[in-house]
Parts: sequence; structure tokens; C-alpha cells
Amino acid sequence: MILVDIYKTLTDHIDISETEWKDYSQMLRTRIVRKKEIIHMQGNICREVFFVRKGLLRIFFIDCDGNEKTFHFAHEGTFATDYESFLKQIPASYSIQALENCELNSMSYEMIQYGYTNLRNGEKLGRLLAEEYFFLFSDKIRAIYTLTPLERYNNLKKEIPSIFQRIPQHYIASFLNISSVHLSRLKKQDR
Amino acid sequence: MILVDIYKTLTDHIDISETEWKDYSQMLRTRIVRKKEIIHMQGNICREVFFVRKGLLRIFFIDCDGNEKTFHFAHEGTFATDYESFLKQIPASYSIQALENCELNSMSYEMIQYGYTNLRNGEKLGRLLAEEYFFLFSDKIRAIYTLTPLERYNNLKKEIPSIFQRIPQHYIASFLNISSVHLSRLKKQDR
Repeated sequence: MILVDIYKTLTDHIDISETEWKDYSQMLRTRIVRKKEIIHMQGNICREVFFVRKGLLRIFFIDCDGNEKTFHFAHEGTFATDYESFLKQIPASYSIQALENCELNSMSYEMIQYGYTNLRNGEKLGRLLAEEYFFLFSDKIRAIYTLTPLERYNNLKKEIPSIFQRIPQHYIASFLNISSVHLSRLKKQDR
Repeated sequence: MILVDIYKTLTDHIDISETEWKDYSQMLRTRIVRKKEIIHMQGNICREVFFVRKGLLRIFFIDCDGNEKTFHFAHEGTFATDYESFLKQIPASYSIQALENCELNSMSYEMIQYGYTNLRNGEKLGRLLAEEYFFLFSDKIRAIYTLTPLERYNNLKKEIPSIFQRIPQHYIASFLNISSVHLSRLKKQDR
């Protein structure tokens, strides 16, 4: 499997010269994590933004009834963090778990702050990534209020086609906010 | 009533010199709108970011069962827009209505783009405003999944203490995602 390159992903957003990257990427860390490992725990301050080079992460939380809810899946080439906890340096509302053996890049709080001031287009990068996080949360709200389970299912299939083969189905049911029985029915209709 | 000044609000975020503002504020428009007026309609592309100098706006949408849902209230000194529609220039998911006679400032798409490139800290302003929008949506999701009706009620009271005297209660019940009867009960307990 080809590893997704964070430099390529960042330069899809802004112009970063190779000289800038040579300097900046020194601050980047690589993390190899095992399937099922919790890499960030709800309640702790989130001090990293993860970039998924390989594998799949699950972002989840405990709801007001004490049930675990899967909120988001971060697949190859995308970022994962509790961005509010990270930006405000406050206790996190979400946990992050590896659903497969993963290879991640990790950007620290200091690296992001350094980027704002030292990359020529650092603030622009920060703006575009904040906008993407905003779009992600905006999508979640639309999914809750205005989409049917079938529409949510189709959106997930479009976003990560391989996901139904990669992880236990109860995570997908939780993400779609439906029962496992309902998910089986949707999958049968989809054949 | 004192009118809230947008320059003051923006300089709470970034440093804008008076010379910069003299130039930039030429692009700002003032809009006087009457109570009940719809200033932006779901389905249309949102081409303005509104700043509430005076009055109160309601952001709402139609959910998957065809019911109108009040999503957010924008009070004096805060911004209102369908930011995803605005940034992507796509049809909006939300409508915006004046709940009182309002005095607004309006920033066009061109004004925002001009700011990114021509204000010294334009990109930083864009980043901070995108982050605020993200925090707002993050709060909404937390309110849906992890807060009780009483906690949502208390948060609203803290954010806009005067709101219970200012607008019809059914908008507040819709915002809190509870029935009008339930809202009356919370208010009685609160006395």
C-alpha cells in the first residue's frame, strides 16, 4: 500500500517551498500505532493533530446516556484531532482509536503555532484547515437533522468505499446513528 | 441603545491600523431591516456575512420531516451567515430572519476575499473567524448529544440573558429542541 504524503496534502492547500518544508518538517513526528490502540482519550487536552499516512482512525465520545458514539472515521490522507481541545488547550470531548495498524504523522501544538508565524502562507493554511473542520461539523449537523439513514449510508460509502470490509459493522451502525439490524437491511438492499 | 462597532470587534481578533480600516471599511454596507424580515433564504447562495450592530437574528432550517428548526440566535456584536454557503458559494442550508428591527453591517464575498490579501493580518482574521464558526458548530453537536435540556437552557441564558423577554417562546423551545410545555416548566423551576 502506498503511504500518503503529508507534504503533498499540505501543498494541495497552499504553496510551501521545498526549502520551507525542509525546515518545517523537522518538527513532524512519525507514530506507528497498533490496531485497537487509543491514541487520545476524552477528558485529556489534545496536543497533536494526526495525519493518517496508512490505516484508519475512529473518533468517538460518550453521550449523555453513557453510550459510546462513533462520530467520525479518519482514513488515509486526512487529519484527525479534537480540534477544539487542541486550539483552546482544554479537555477534549472526543477520544481517538486506531481501527487498523496505522502509520501516522503527528503535528504538535508548537509546530502548528510555528507554522502560523514562519511559513509564508501559514495563516492561510490555518484558515483553510479550520474551514475544513468547520465543513466537517456542518456536514455532521446536516446529517443529523436533514438526511435519512439511507442518505447517510450512501455518503459514507462514497467517502470511504472500503470501510464496510475494513472494520466491525457496529462502529458503522453507531456512526450512522442506526441499529445493526437496520444497517444489515441497508446493505442487503444495496447489493 | 448603544450600537456595537464592527471595527472594535475585528480589532479584538487582529491588529488593523486606522489607515487600513479607512480603506477597508469603504466596502462595508449598512442594512436596516424590519422585524420578521427574511434577509437570507435557504437554497439561495449566501453572499454576505452580517454583523449585528443592533437587534437579533434567527438562523433556521427545514428538517427532514418538513419542520422548521431554529438553529442559532445572533445577537449584538456577533456575526450571522450561512458560512459554508458563503465560502463555497453553494446553495444555503439555512435561512436568516430578523426577530427585531435590526441595524446590520454587511460584508460581501468580495470584501472578505479582499481582506485576505490586502489586510496585513487578513488571513489570520479569516482563520480566527473560521475557528469561531467551527467552535459554534462544535458546541451545537455537543448540545445535541451530551447536554440535557436544562443544561442547554442555562447555556442560552448565559449567552443571551435578555432573550426570554425579547422573542416568542416557541423559537426558544425549537432552539432547545424541546416542547413549549417543557420550556415553561424549565422557566418555572428557574424562578
